Parts: sequence; C-alpha cells; structure tokens
Amino acid sequence: MTKITSVGIIVRNIDDTARDTLIELLHWLDARKTKVLCDRSVQALTSDYPTFTIEEIGTQVEACIVIGGDGTLLGAARKLVDYRVPLIGINRGRLGFLVDINPEEQFQHLSEILDGRYEAEERFMVECLVMRKGVAIASYNALNDIVVRLGDRLRVLEYETYIDDRFVYLQRADGLIIATPTGSTAYALSNGGPIIHPAQDALLLVSISPHTLSSRPLVVSRASEIRVELNHLDDEGAQLIADGQDYHVLQSGDHIVTKSQTQPVVLLHPQSYDFFEILRAKLNWG
Amino acid sequence: MTKITSVGIIVRNIDDTARDTLIELLHWLDARKTKVLCDRSVQALTSDYPTFTIEEIGTQVEACIVIGGDGTLLGAARKLVDYRVPLIGINRGRLGFLVDINPEEQFQHLSEILDGRYEAEERFMVECLVMRKGVAIASYNALNDIVVRLGDRLRVLEYETYIDDRFVYLQRADGLIIATPTGSTAYALSNGGPIIHPAQDALLLVSISPHTLSSRPLVVSRASEIRVELNHLDDEGAQLIADGQDYHVLQSGDHIVTKSQTQPVVLLHPQSYDFFEILRAKLNWG
Amino acid sequence: MTKITSVGIIVRNIDDTARDTLIELLHWLDARKTKVLCDRSVQALTSDYPTFTIEEIGTQVEACIVIGGDGTLLGAARKLVDYRVPLIGINRGRLGFLVDINPEEQFQHLSEILDGRYEAEERFMVECLVMRKGVAIASYNALNDIVVRLGDRLRVLEYETYIDDRFVYLQRADGLIIATPTGSTAYALSNGGPIIHPAQDALLLVSISPHTLSSRPLVVSRASEIRVELNHLDDEGAQLIADGQDYHVLQSGDHIVTKSQTQPVVLLHPQSYDFFEILRAKLNWG
Amino acid sequence: MTKITSVGIIVRNIDDTARDTLIELLHWLDARKTKVLCDRSVQALTSDYPTFTIEEIGTQVEACIVIGGDGTLLGAARKLVDYRVPLIGINRGRLGFLVDINPEEQFQHLSEILDGRYEAEERFMVECLVMRKGVAIASYNALNDIVVRLGDRLRVLEYETYIDDRFVYLQRADGLIIATPTGSTAYALSNGGPIIHPAQDALLLVSISPHTLSSRPLVVSRASEIRVELNHLDDEGAQLIADGQDYHVLQSGDHIVTKSQTQPVVLLHPQSYDFFEILRAKLNWG
Repeated sequence: MTKITSVGIIVRNIDDTARDTLIELLHWLDARKTKVLCDRSVQALTSDYPTFTIEEIGTQVEACIVIGGDGTLLGAARKLVDYRVPLIGINRGRLGFLVDINPEEQFQHLSEILDGRYEAEERFMVECLVMRKGVAIASYNALNDIVVRLGDRLRVLEYETYIDDRFVYLQRADGLIIATPTGSTAYALSNGGPIIHPAQDALLLVSISPHTLSSRPLVVSRASEIRVELNHLDDEGAQLIADGQDYHVLQSGDHIVTKSQTQPVVLLHPQSYDFFEILRAKLNWG
Repeated sequence: MTKITSVGIIVRNIDDTARDTLIELLHWLDARKTKVLCDRSVQALTSDYPTFTIEEIGTQVEACIVIGGDGTLLGAARKLVDYRVPLIGINRGRLGFLVDINPEEQFQHLSEILDGRYEAEERFMVECLVMRKGVAIASYNALNDIVVRLGDRLRVLEYETYIDDRFVYLQRADGLIIATPTGSTAYALSNGGPIIHPAQDALLLVSISPHTLSSRPLVVSRASEIRVELNHLDDEGAQLIADGQDYHVLQSGDHIVTKSQTQPVVLLHPQSYDFFEILRAKLNWG
Repeated sequence: MTKITSVGIIVRNIDDTARDTLIELLHWLDARKTKVLCDRSVQALTSDYPTFTIEEIGTQVEACIVIGGDGTLLGAARKLVDYRVPLIGINRGRLGFLVDINPEEQFQHLSEILDGRYEAEERFMVECLVMRKGVAIASYNALNDIVVRLGDRLRVLEYETYIDDRFVYLQRADGLIIATPTGSTAYALSNGGPIIHPAQDALLLVSISPHTLSSRPLVVSRASEIRVELNHLDDEGAQLIADGQDYHVLQSGDHIVTKSQTQPVVLLHPQSYDFFEILRAKLNWG
Repeated sequence: MTKITSVGIIVRNIDDTARDTLIELLHWLDARKTKVLCDRSVQALTSDYPTFTIEEIGTQVEACIVIGGDGTLLGAARKLVDYRVPLIGINRGRLGFLVDINPEEQFQHLSEILDGRYEAEERFMVECLVMRKGVAIASYNALNDIVVRLGDRLRVLEYETYIDDRFVYLQRADGLIIATPTGSTAYALSNGGPIIHPAQDALLLVSISPHTLSSRPLVVSRASEIRVELNHLDDEGAQLIADGQDYHVLQSGDHIVTKSQTQPVVLLHPQSYDFFEILRAKLNWG
C-alpha cells in the first residue's frame, strides 16, 4: 500500500449546512500538502477553490473523497469507474453502507488511509443495455441495482426473464430488481431480498410485489447474462432505473440485458472496517 | 329471498371474443322473460340492444350481472354502490375472488340466483378524501384498496400515518396500501399482507417496500379514520390510486383521509359459494 | 372509575435483583393503606409478608399488580381470568406489550391507577380442547396463542384446518399458531404475521415454516371455532403449547379445537397509554 | 463422457408399492448386461438379489441409482460422497429437486446416461463439528443443511454467530439454518430464504422465527467457516439436525462449526436437465 498524495472531492451539493465541514477538510488536506481537485459539486458550498471536470479528476488523482450519503457515492462510482480511481466515503452524520467514515472520526481515518493504511475492497458493477427491436438504444451502469418498474399509471408489468438464454419465468409484478451484492442492502432488501456479502460473485433477482405468491429472490452467478423481455404494456409505459438515479422510459417489447462489468469500483476503508458491524448498526440488530 | 325479475348487464368492453357468450346470455334472459338493461359497455360487443345509463340501471333493476374479471366488478361496484343494486359476477374463464361464477356453470347458477336461491354477502367499501391546505379537493371510493404510491421518478415517499388522530409511524417507502378485507387478497397480498376474511370489520395497512425492515402489516378497526400526511416530495409527485383504476396526482403536504362507507356493496353468490375454496384455487394451495 | 383499595402482587420469581424494588413497592402500598395480598411467588424475594393462594387473591382483591415480563403477566392472566381481577403490569426495566409501566414511573402511574384514573382495556383469551378419539382429554386457555408444533425429532407436521366446520387447507409445516390480537405481537409476529390492534374481534392463523410457499397468515372472526386435525405422525409426536408455557404431547389423529373465551382479561393502563407508542418502541420504528 | 457398466441401487425402503417398478428396472439392467450391486434397502422389496454394503457399492460401481424422494438421495449422498460415486435420482411419481427422473421416462433417460450422454453436476456438501468445552464430540455432513433448533420444551434459542471469526449477531430465535445452494430450495425456503443457483459457491444462513424483525437471510462465501455458539439453555436442550435426518442433542455452551467439504457429490442428469424448469414445476410458477 502506498501513500496517497492527490485526491478529488465530490460532495452532495444540495446540503448547505455542510459548508463548514468541507472548508475544514480542505484546510486539513492543504496542511498535509495533499493535492486537491474539487468537483463542480463543491462550488455550491464554496467558490474559493477552482473546480475540475470528472475527466480531469479521473486522470489526475490517486483517490476521490466523496462526502454525502450512499447515493452520492453511487453517482461518483458510476462516473469514475472507468478511470479506476478508488473512492473514500465520508457520511454526513448518518452511517451509510458505502460512506462508512463518520464525520467525527474523519481526520483520524483519512490520515490512516492517505498514509497507505487502508483496506481496499473491490465492488463489481453491472452494465445494462436497453434493446429496442434488436438495437441497443441506451446503456447504463450501476453499483447497486438495475430496476425495471411500472410507470405512473401502469397497473402491472408483464415480462419474461432469461438467465444465460434459459427461460426462468413469466411474471406479473410491479417490477424486477437486478442487484449486485452491494445493492443487496439497498432497494432489494426492502423487497424481501437476502443480504449478500459484498465479496460474493453473485447477482440477485428480486421481484417487486409479484402476483405469484411463491415467487422468491434468486441468487445466480455474477457471470450470468440476465435478459428481461417486456410484454405488451399499456400506453403509460414502464421505466428502467439505474442506482435509483438514471431513468429510461421503456416500451412494449423492449429487452433489458445486464452483465457484470469487468472493471470494479475500489472502495478504500479504514483498517477497522467491518461489514457485519455496519450491518448491525444499520439494521438495528441486537 | 325473492325472485329477481330485472337485471342490468355490464361487460368488460375490450374483449371481443366474448360476443357469443354475451348473446347467448341475453337470449337466455329473454327466454326467462327477465327484464334486461344493458350498460353502454355492451355496445362494443353487440348493437342489437338499447343501452342505459348507470343511473337508469341503478334505479330500475333488482341486480346487475357483471361479466369480466375482478377489475370489471370493482368498477361496477364503485358506480352502483349508492343505488344499492346487488352484483352477480361471471368470470371470463379465469376464476376471480369477486367474479366467482364460471362461464360453463353460468346458466345453472344464474337460474338459482334469479329464482331467489342465493347467498347475499355484504362487502364494505372505503371512501377517501384528498385534502390540500385543509380543503377537500377530491374524493374516491374503493372496494379493494386506496394506494398512495410514489410517482414515476420519485425515489421514496415519506409520510406520517395517523389512526383516529393517533400517530402511528413516520415511514419512508414506495407507498402505503389501505385495504378492505375484500382487498386483502389483491394488491396487499403481493406486498406481504395477510388474508382477512371478507366478513371481518377490519382495515388493513400494508407498506410497499418500506425502508424500515421491522415494518409489518397492521390490522385495525373498520371504524378507524386513517390519515396519511405526505411530507415534502420532490417535484415529480406521488399518486393516489383507488382500486387500481382511479388516479389522482398528489403534492407535498397533501393529506389523504379514509373512512369506511356506510353503504355496502352486496354480492349475490350461488348457495354453494365457499370463500376458502376460492382461496385454495386462486393460491394453488394443496 | 372507582378507587382501588386492595391489590394482589405476583412477581417473576427467578429474578432476585428485584428484591429492593418489591420491598419499596410494598412499603409504598402500606403507606397508602392499600390492602395487599402477596402471591407465593413473592416468597422467593421476601418472607416478611404472608402469602395467599390464587383463589384467595382472586376473590379478595380489586386488582392484581404483576411485576416481571410479558410472560409473567400471561401466566397471571390465565390463572386469574375466571376471578375477573384486572391486571396492572410493571416491567423489570424492559418495556413489554403487556407490562407497560416502567419501574422509574411506577409510583406515579400506580397512584393514578389506584385513584381510579386508569384506562381499562379488555383482552379476550382463547380456550382450547385436545380431543382424542372424540373425547376431550385436556383443556388450556391462552391470552397470546395456542401453538401446535412438531416435536423434537418429527420432520414435518401434517394437519387439516377447519374454521366453523369449513375445510380451509391441508398443510405440511413445522406447526400452526392460533393467536389473539394480543398474541399477534408475540410468536406470530416472528413467523410473518400482521399486527392486529388489541381491540379487534379477530383471530389470527399463522403457519410455521409451511412447505406451501403461497401460504399466508389468515385473519378470521373472533367468534370462529378453529379445528386442527393432526394426520398420521411419526412416533416422536407433536406438542401443543399455550402461551409458550403450558405443554401437551399430541398424537396422530388428535383434534385441537379452539374458541374465544367469553370472560376477557382486563388490563388497567395509565391514562397516557398508547398502543402505537409501545409498538414503535418495541419494534424500533422510526 | 464414458459409458457406465456397473451401478449400485438404493431404494426408499418403506414403500412396498414400488416392488414392480424395481423388478422391472433390475430386469432392464440385466438385459443391458449392466453389473448391479443392490444396497440392503432393496431387500425390503425383493430377496431375489444379493445385497452389498455401502463400502462394497462405493468401491465397485461407477454410479449409483437412487429411487425415492429427495430425502432418499440426501441419505445416499452422505454415505457415498467419500467414495466419489455419482448419483442418478429416480423419483417415485413426484418430481424432486434431486430425484429429477420421472418413472415414466426412466428407461429412456437411464439409457442415455448409461451410454455416457449425461450432464454431470457437482454439488458441494458441508461438514459440521459439535464442539463441547473445546473438544469435537461429533461430526456430521450434509448436502442440504445443518439446522440448530430448539428442543421440545425450549421456548427460545439464544446464540452468537461468527463468520470466519468475525462476530455477526446475537440472536434469539427458534433456530438457525446453514444451507448449501442445494439446500436453499428445501427447509431454508420455507423460512424465507432465497433460491441460490446450485452452481454458486455460497452458503446461506436463515434464522427460524427470529425475535429481531429486521433479521434477514445472509449469503456468504462457500469458503467461510461458520461458528454458532449456544448461550445458556434451559434444561430441555437444543438439537442439531443434518439434512433433516441425523440428530444430535446440544447443550448450553456447545459450539457448532461448519465448513464446506472439499469432495463434492456428483449428480448425473439427462442432458435435457434444466434447473429452472424444475423450479417452475416445483413452485407452481406461471
């Protein structure tokens, strides 16, 4: 493990109470003589620092500090994954599964991490194509999940699911979640899915409000190609949602095809990081 | 029990294969000298019969035959409940919870029922007001359920629920289902709710994909007033859906207030009707 | 509401740290000149007071204070229900659904209650007969639940359930829970059952680990007679458990018949009592 | 793939209606000049054939035909796994997850398989040690699951679970299931677990009726060592159950330690074998 001497900074930009914390962090990094490239999201909180594009951050820093909630880190991961920049997540007072450094411990943990004493953890992402009449019309990637869900006025979604070209089921439901192990503790968990340890090479399929009562979550290989074929929809349409953030309106007959991505996201944790401890804290166990 | 000498007819109007069945039924009723008032929905299948408004049907017949799926009967119930016209449900080849007469047995069962040999069952409905800044801006009624659900691009709904003015919980979820016992075997069942016997004076609250994992369905008195107060929403809004059919776009701060209706829907069943038998058939038990 | 001038005392007898609390309570009652009849369970903590039989307590006091957990109150309820003695539950530092007075507030709340300022709440119980070859060989009553469960080495229980003589289902499962609304927040809740408001006149049937995946909890009328007929068992047998406390070994062919009891248990709560508040606290909501 | 010229035969021995089927199979194998070694279980149905020990079968045949239910195959797997004899499962008229050849197709499918046209599938097993005061007092292996469950009169089990020496949770529940992917469609499924594709290198932990409502099934690496430490039990004890067949009475303080076994069971399927097809048939999907 090597020292980290340059970092990017991405913040959740709608939260103006965080200004002081950010300024304090920037001064602290400055004092350490760490090179800092601020993302444009920083500008909403302070205009004292120049800002840089994702491409500049992606190509010029050794790691990127993300300040916000798990959603902020998901967004950063999707943008930075191709640049292979590891991410460090600092939460805003509420522990996340991904932003696991609490503000009150941030300088201690950042010290350790920037000094090279960290646990690097790979989390794989999925990529997803929207196929219309045999042509790929859009692609998305996701660290948590790809969700195919009914639109505003649609009453039920009907679709066939294939895993590696094998027919699995024809379902009528509000939708289907295709989640990574990282996403197993997010939306999938609210829909009855299991918790999958982040190191597992597995994909999780969870139906949303399925009509068939014997429907159950399904865990398959990370290597699987999953194809969801939408049957005829009423005119109000359905939607694809990547990580709860990117949307695409779907039509009757669209196919959604997902595969895991080769290039993983790397998270840098303090060495005291313990997945089960976060689980206990987040789920009120014990 | 008295004989039934006049009936209305409502059909699911998008299904043109049903024409022969309907004509056969109309001839059979004609041969019995039963007075028949066809709803406008009949016109899509045959123009040989005059059609009547819901008000005319509601005030001039002793019962109304509904041909279609459970959804067709739900729609008929909401329109006819105030006229106190009992409903007879004939399905289109697939047994429903509400349309419980199979086509192949329809003449036998209709004979019995029109001769006065039926089981009359009351099912209560809920009515619901949408309150905006203290003013009722819309009202709906439902035989199955009132659903408050996030809109297309909204990621989570946050609301407080009060039962008879007592605070129950603040939830973050995809939505909330307020169901009658009749509705307990519909959308609520796909969301983890229990089956409530139709004769129970109870209301069922089921959260859709709740963030709090210890959330559980809640059964309270039919007499309860349930109030759902929507917290601040993102601009994409939320929606209220009555029986999966009537929609209303909701805004931040809207209150949804539901009460059970005094006037019940009356269903006329063959005397062999058995709720548990339908349950076993519909849920593949045993 | 009238003042209460005589009370019984029942304590959970295996907890010797509670001695000081009990003595303090006895002195406090003495100072109020409240007549006190101690149950034999008190003797494990102090021998300074004479003890009385349940019959003496049942016939000579106006209310009975129960100190312990929900299990302690369940036991007291089953013994005292026929004497119509209302119960006041004080917990031992951990809030219960039934023992809802916390030790640190006990004197304030007991003052109110003994002065007649209480909320009296009726909770109905179920009674249960074990029928063998047509003969009732044992009977039990329960405030929470009657559980029919496989024995030590039995792999699966097979039984038919009838409600008011109507066949409901043939199931293969680890067992079946028949719960009152009071019991809906106990063992039934751990097995996927809904929460039923205590004032509901309803019974809840929840299967334990059922083989049929479309099995769902069932809510029926309090007035229902529920009959469970055990099919052939392996020789290791099954067991009936009332309120998790009374056991009976069952055999192949036994019928278990439950009905709700006419005589309810009465709980006396402080006037600030709020069922939903207890629910939120116990289930970590919000 | 090579031809199979010698087979063992194991049957479920309590089913005497199966005699004709077995005799027919033995004649068919005889006609093919396949060497046959009958297990002692065959003797209950016919005494015309010599019988052999598991060791003889394990060392002298190329495959073993198992006739019965999934339970029969589980038993055969546990006995034969160390001899590396592949198993062929024929059901008795009711499709199983493991005994996937239906009797009416048995000769066609056996022909293919014995001719070398089969799909060989590896299923890993878990082994389990019962540790008492630091000493291993018993060991078990299982193809489906290791279950730690409360005994007859025990009301709740309390245990701590560790994965690779990391503390996961302290739970109060009826028990804990540690399942292989093979076992995910058995007892774990009745307790809310997900379906895990048999090829996944994963272990599944599912709690039975847990008191903590936010408890969820957990999927971890096959390589994990799982340790369950039983806290103080009441005198009635708890039990360990391997594949629903082997029992061990547990005491307070016992540790149960499970690891996956290196040596897998090999199942020989017809080439038309499709896991998802069996899933759809067994779970009534669609």
